[in-house]
Amino acid sequence: MQKINQKFSQKFNLGCQLDYTIAQPSTLIWTVQVASDRAQKIVREELKLNPPIEVEEYISPLEGNRYIRSNAMPGSLQLSYRATVEMFQFDAQPEAAAEIPAADLPLETLHYLYPSRYCQSDLLVGLANSEFGDLEPGYARVSAICDWIYSKVKYLSGSTDSQTSACDTARERAGVCRDFAHLGIAFCRALNIPARFVSAYAYRLEPADFHACFEAFLGDRWYLFDATRLAPLDGIVRISIGRDAADVSFGTLFGEVQMEQMNVFVESAEENSQSDNFQESSEAVTRAPAISLSESLVAK
Amino acid sequence: MQKINQKFSQKFNLGCQLDYTIAQPSTLIWTVQVASDRAQKIVREELKLNPPIEVEEYISPLEGNRYIRSNAMPGSLQLSYRATVEMFQFDAQPEAAAEIPAADLPLETLHYLYPSRYCQSDLLVGLANSEFGDLEPGYARVSAICDWIYSKVKYLSGSTDSQTSACDTARERAGVCRDFAHLGIAFCRALNIPARFVSAYAYRLEPADFHACFEAFLGDRWYLFDATRLAPLDGIVRISIGRDAADVSFGTLFGEVQMEQMNVFVESAEENSQSDNFQESSEAVTRAPAISLSESLVAK
Amino acid sequence: MQKINQKFSQKFNLGCQLDYTIAQPSTLIWTVQVASDRAQKIVREELKLNPPIEVEEYISPLEGNRYIRSNAMPGSLQLSYRATVEMFQFDAQPEAAAEIPAADLPLETLHYLYPSRYCQSDLLVGLANSEFGDLEPGYARVSAICDWIYSKVKYLSGSTDSQTSACDTARERAGVCRDFAHLGIAFCRALNIPARFVSAYAYRLEPADFHACFEAFLGDRWYLFDATRLAPLDGIVRISIGRDAADVSFGTLFGEVQMEQMNVFVESAEENSQSDNFQESSEAVTRAPAISLSESLVAK
Amino acid sequence: MQKINQKFSQKFNLGCQLDYTIAQPSTLIWTVQVASDRAQKIVREELKLNPPIEVEEYISPLEGNRYIRSNAMPGSLQLSYRATVEMFQFDAQPEAAAEIPAADLPLETLHYLYPSRYCQSDLLVGLANSEFGDLEPGYARVSAICDWIYSKVKYLSGSTDSQTSACDTARERAGVCRDFAHLGIAFCRALNIPARFVSAYAYRLEPADFHACFEAFLGDRWYLFDATRLAPLDGIVRISIGRDAADVSFGTLFGEVQMEQMNVFVESAEENSQSDNFQESSEAVTRAPAISLSESLVAK
Repeated sequence: MQKINQKFSQKFNLGCQLDYTIAQPSTLIWTVQVASDRAQKIVREELKLNPPIEVEEYISPLEGNRYIRSNAMPGSLQLSYRATVEMFQFDAQPEAAAEIPAADLPLETLHYLYPSRYCQSDLLVGLANSEFGDLEPGYARVSAICDWIYSKVKYLSGSTDSQTSACDTARERAGVCRDFAHLGIAFCRALNIPARFVSAYAYRLEPADFHACFEAFLGDRWYLFDATRLAPLDGIVRISIGRDAADVSFGTLFGEVQMEQMNVFVESAEENSQSDNFQESSEAVTRAPAISLSESLVAK
Repeated sequence: MQKINQKFSQKFNLGCQLDYTIAQPSTLIWTVQVASDRAQKIVREELKLNPPIEVEEYISPLEGNRYIRSNAMPGSLQLSYRATVEMFQFDAQPEAAAEIPAADLPLETLHYLYPSRYCQSDLLVGLANSEFGDLEPGYARVSAICDWIYSKVKYLSGSTDSQTSACDTARERAGVCRDFAHLGIAFCRALNIPARFVSAYAYRLEPADFHACFEAFLGDRWYLFDATRLAPLDGIVRISIGRDAADVSFGTLFGEVQMEQMNVFVESAEENSQSDNFQESSEAVTRAPAISLSESLVAK
Repeated sequence: MQKINQKFSQKFNLGCQLDYTIAQPSTLIWTVQVASDRAQKIVREELKLNPPIEVEEYISPLEGNRYIRSNAMPGSLQLSYRATVEMFQFDAQPEAAAEIPAADLPLETLHYLYPSRYCQSDLLVGLANSEFGDLEPGYARVSAICDWIYSKVKYLSGSTDSQTSACDTARERAGVCRDFAHLGIAFCRALNIPARFVSAYAYRLEPADFHACFEAFLGDRWYLFDATRLAPLDGIVRISIGRDAADVSFGTLFGEVQMEQMNVFVESAEENSQSDNFQESSEAVTRAPAISLSESLVAK
Repeated sequence: MQKINQKFSQKFNLGCQLDYTIAQPSTLIWTVQVASDRAQKIVREELKLNPPIEVEEYISPLEGNRYIRSNAMPGSLQLSYRATVEMFQFDAQPEAAAEIPAADLPLETLHYLYPSRYCQSDLLVGLANSEFGDLEPGYARVSAICDWIYSKVKYLSGSTDSQTSACDTARERAGVCRDFAHLGIAFCRALNIPARFVSAYAYRLEPADFHACFEAFLGDRWYLFDATRLAPLDGIVRISIGRDAADVSFGTLFGEVQMEQMNVFVESAEENSQSDNFQESSEAVTRAPAISLSESLVAK
């Protein structure tokens, strides 16, 4: 395990407000609370439901995703979440991060090699090898994948829906952050690089919204990539991790529920936020949330 | 949690022999060893590689799947596995098992509700509701799903490949055990019943081979179903559990490897195996490997 | 060729009005005029464009589809079409119509056996044989196909789009007239019955709109089927014929064109239209527009 | 209509031999005879069946495809076809051929704009525009499409089957001549260029086999393209034309028929065939079979 030194940290205030109209008794499951690990520390946090109904919590043991469930009666329901998070940046050197052969991959990363509902990597082996097969393996190749997606896929709100998969996006060449992430993940897996979906709050994302990007396993840890280049990587605060969007929807609704409004915000909590030092998103990889595998998968 | 009494137990000798030709240094990952839990106890077990190369083991913390990895040099390679397993049958009453609403589902079963690569339940909501939406929820409905698959899908060796999904099988109406399981899982999830893929050794399966079936979460535990009706449910010895076949391939090969031969066997280890008391597979559910959720997912 | 006697005739007034806003010079191609053949005679007809721009006409030599093309300048454009059509009903006995083996099929019907964009019959062979393979061939089998579609597919406005195909509808179990027709066609072709798409005006369709149904080749001619049962078959006035909807869109637009409004109407032109004698649409076949092959394909 | 001068002509001897075993009375439909038009003249021709069973012929009125049908009894069946064809080369200048806007396209080319079973151009609009949308329209753009396919899709015998479509090939990046043609056609149609499938005998194709390529409508006629670059365009002798391979299979079999062997041959019939003057296939377009639309579609 490469030793990584903490470089600096930054604080964010973030949160969301979700308004629903419930027609019949319904169940709502949310994943909107930020994850807690060595790279991101929750300074304070508040979750409110109005009316104040009971909430059941569950943290998935491997990924640390925080699920909450409520059973709501007919009427209005509002979820408000606010948190202050300190993000620690590390002194990693991703450019040197290598692809790890199957012989040496940590076996707990294996299921991030397999195809999933929206990242059908088995169907994209030909395309991935045709476009990226001859590139130098490692960090540079995953960066090249992000560049390819950024230059060939148009970011177009409303162009896709919840059934859109990486195969569709490779063909339709349009999508939103979720589709960009799915395609990046599918290409990585097709090249035998473990990759996983990340849902997040993203500083400076315009317009403000929940964001999606992905992590690839290189060297001895997961590195964050964002093919949309819509937000600085240092300002991406992780909510949850999954194989693809199927695992980490911010809201899953059972019953007759209508979401009326959604507001998401992320602000710098630094005193002088003008002087902040956010990485250009075009570099498409973070030097920062370089979470070691043991921390994120075992030490929890 | 419903109290279940142990009824009786039966012993099996089982195993496999896999022969490979390796052209270049390669990595092989197998999942062929039986799982160990309250319902199935490994009495003795032996795994041999010839030539005797080193093996790395990994047990997935949630499902208890046992992965082994070897890095092989060019030449022949043979894996031999033998085990004696005692299967405990319980006195459950599956007929009374209910579907659990989202409000009450254990949250750790949630990710078995989501669509996966080969079980695109989100694409089969219309079909599932059209065929099964009006049926009485619960054990009887999952049984009806198995009956539907059994009567409408032809078991046909070689009719499908590793890319075949539940959507394909719903349309092609032909497949093998893996396809039957995928379709059953996809229908269950489309109806909001958690369901997962089981790879197994199966007593009396003809011809002998690795088998696949599925579990649905009903009442307070997972119940085993096999829409192929090719083997008695009491004789199904679990190897591994996953969202679909992507997770639990018995062998994943990286490199230039050719499997030359595969032999699988399962025999009764009872003194008088004639008098055994195997459930008719046509009932499509076991009264037996009724593994409570807490045991299989938490207590490990 | 079976001799068929004319039974009676009925007259309809029908037409449409289409309003567009043109942003840039654009080309519009319409297929809204009714076809003319022995079964339907155009008594009078009027097509107007406002502003009165030039129109180019083309009648496809085999199907008799009437295409018109205009090149429009920015501004408003309105197409108005009105016709009076006399429909002749014949004394055919469809119940006796047989499926024709490949050995005897008129070779000019062959390309209606092949799969097309929205009727991928090659992908539905398994499903078609599983559901209809054991039925008595002939008119009764095509009727059974229509019954199956009617009972299993929900008519749901807005549930599909222009990319929806028969494979999708078999799975989604919802659609509009176009999807019902595509599925019927695909099932017929999968069983080696030539089938083709019909776009039409339909008397008593609620709400009034362009309609779609299909024809299957049985005995020595094409018979009309409508799995939606939304309109009496005797009141279906054909506009055009194609392999599927790709061929017979009522309007194909090249440029920046927005359709603002669409009105379609069909009225009985009989003096006493209350006493009309329309066949119950639930019978799912016409005794009427029994157009002989030679007429519809050769004699033109 | 641009005047084109005949440049020179070349003769080929070509043919095929197809051997079948018939298990039950079966129907076979072949399209193996070359088409006859101004660009290719049949000097002599012979078709034999052994045993000498009866043959029914049909020439499709628009495309001039020649279908033959036989009803065979159990036993062996051999079809032998031999022809001498004179191919006329014309002095066209394809480099100047323009894409024709919808306003001016001959309306009889319209149905080659629509998506078909294996050329789902509606699904490839995004990809086509992303890759070719910014290129200069006209002959150069269709050439660029062929170059793209040639460089990105691997020619790999046995990599695809009869269900493989252009969407699959765009993703799998491997295929045979039929797949190369489908992808070229789909890209053209997605860009509003009419395109159609051509099955052919091809001189110097190695190994000898039936070949497939495609025609795009540019300027005032159809131009031939072959993205495989496997044979000189001047040596491509057309059998039939269709929307895609669904229309022009060289053999369609109804019944229990097994093809045992297939031999195809094409030889130069010039006295000094060494000095022949075949165009480099890498130019990906013919200057030759520049068949005017009126000839190929109307004047027949």
